[in-house]
Amino acid sequence: MPLASNSGEQWFGERERVGLEQRIQVRRVLYEGRSEFQSICVLDTVPFGRALILDNILQTTEKDEFIYHEMLVHPTLISLTRPERVLIVGGGDGGSLRRALEHSPREVVQVELDRAVVETCRRHLPRVSSGAFDDPRVQLLFADGYEFVEKAQESFDAIIVDLTDPFPPGPSQRLFTAEFYQAVRRILKEEGLIVTQSSSALLLTDELLSIYANLKAVFPLVRVYLAPVPSYPGVVWSFTLASAGNDPLALDEAVVRQRLEARGISSRYYSPQLHLASFALPSFLAALLAEPERLQDLRITQPSAQ
Amino acid sequence: MPLASNSGEQWFGERERVGLEQRIQVRRVLYEGRSEFQSICVLDTVPFGRALILDNILQTTEKDEFIYHEMLVHPTLISLTRPERVLIVGGGDGGSLRRALEHSPREVVQVELDRAVVETCRRHLPRVSSGAFDDPRVQLLFADGYEFVEKAQESFDAIIVDLTDPFPPGPSQRLFTAEFYQAVRRILKEEGLIVTQSSSALLLTDELLSIYANLKAVFPLVRVYLAPVPSYPGVVWSFTLASAGNDPLALDEAVVRQRLEARGISSRYYSPQLHLASFALPSFLAALLAEPERLQDLRITQPSAQ
Repeated sequence: MPLASNSGEQWFGERERVGLEQRIQVRRVLYEGRSEFQSICVLDTVPFGRALILDNILQTTEKDEFIYHEMLVHPTLISLTRPERVLIVGGGDGGSLRRALEHSPREVVQVELDRAVVETCRRHLPRVSSGAFDDPRVQLLFADGYEFVEKAQESFDAIIVDLTDPFPPGPSQRLFTAEFYQAVRRILKEEGLIVTQSSSALLLTDELLSIYANLKAVFPLVRVYLAPVPSYPGVVWSFTLASAGNDPLALDEAVVRQRLEARGISSRYYSPQLHLASFALPSFLAALLAEPERLQDLRITQPSAQ
Repeated sequence: MPLASNSGEQWFGERERVGLEQRIQVRRVLYEGRSEFQSICVLDTVPFGRALILDNILQTTEKDEFIYHEMLVHPTLISLTRPERVLIVGGGDGGSLRRALEHSPREVVQVELDRAVVETCRRHLPRVSSGAFDDPRVQLLFADGYEFVEKAQESFDAIIVDLTDPFPPGPSQRLFTAEFYQAVRRILKEEGLIVTQSSSALLLTDELLSIYANLKAVFPLVRVYLAPVPSYPGVVWSFTLASAGNDPLALDEAVVRQRLEARGISSRYYSPQLHLASFALPSFLAALLAEPERLQDLRITQPSAQ
């Protein structure tokens, strides 16, 4: 783990591709190792408590994981009257699993590539999953998510794609392609939804645009929504969901509130108002999604050389 | 201007009080000086173009100023059927002035403490004001905003408070107090609104809570809304508006759209949907505003020692 040292302090730095770096002060390195697939590190940080770092990119922290995980999971699962079978692809820290279980599904299948990520998180970041891996409704498989979805014989009400970024190219790259989404659609029930994190919303719009286009190539309904994750560089994160027609925006606040209450869910970021408000995009981003060829005009920052 | 140098690159760093630092790569220093009130610097940055820095704190950049200025000005002025007289306190870069003029007021009075800020911005950041200072409807005064408001004999439809943060203590500190808001209320018309930037929303919640409480002590209606400003550390910024009863949330999307069209305003961030959606706060922030004594439980990050 390359940490910068300044007058006795240690800092973890994550550099955006645009001459922008977020630095987080580190108390100590709790774990550092390498799996078959990636480097894995757990830091105890000053602002965000413990943080999981994969291949030098921050994935989640104890203090703000609730925003990312609630916003990845709740908008999709609340849009289903009864989310019985849920598939999570990735999500080795268990934060998505924990929120999926709050919706009282009959079964959650989680397919994580890297057993070492789950083991590291259960040991060093137990608060993120809060015991979710021990729930009897969970079937945890260590396998390639692409292959699992391609070969699966059962269908799902929701598929939650909780992966490392497609860029720089890593183990998850194939799971952001139109080919993968085609395979997903085959195992999604008629009312089902897929949701994926889709990278930084304001800075790395190239990635968001590509994920959006790939989902559009496969699904009739595709929607982007945003939430801020303070520990991620760029902070404002995008999520993209898709379906054959089931539209989260068709719910009103009262229905969302009623479903949250019926399922006994109390959230720290997500709310009935935010369920709708998170889909209201900045004008320039809405214009970009409609006309991605205008990227050069509309982007806020220039991409810097790789 | 203290810039960090790494292997030939120069970086401007802004450290939050919580072990968090945002660093922006600098091409060159365009201007560096000191006025009677503060240090003033203009940097040419890699990600955001030119940036204004006052007392080592980034105030605005060419690339993302539109988000901050549109969101400071439009929600308030669109809530007025005819914003005839507008007062801007601070706002020396001219970005708020430019957006206020888009609402076709009869007159905008701008009271800026530091003549050197306006001169520096007109010379080095002309795109932010885009000629607004030359508009014949503008009366620009170089004076103390607190004293101006205290002694003013005329009333205003809207008062836009566009100042440096109250912390660390600087020239603008007095303009975030309940005493100042009391003086503001005296010169606000019955339907009038005041709006102020109120600091980082997710990290520096102490400041937001204090500004909110001070406005609550004076005005019956107080509302907080959010927008992301990528060049600011913490990114998610808060704005707080207040009035005797005029409520921006009483407008629906159609009315906002119609007023934007009637005034010929085309915005890059703000939109009729975002007019409403920006007021939907994260659950934990809404809970904090309702019960500020829960700050220790609800805050995301610990404040670090000063």
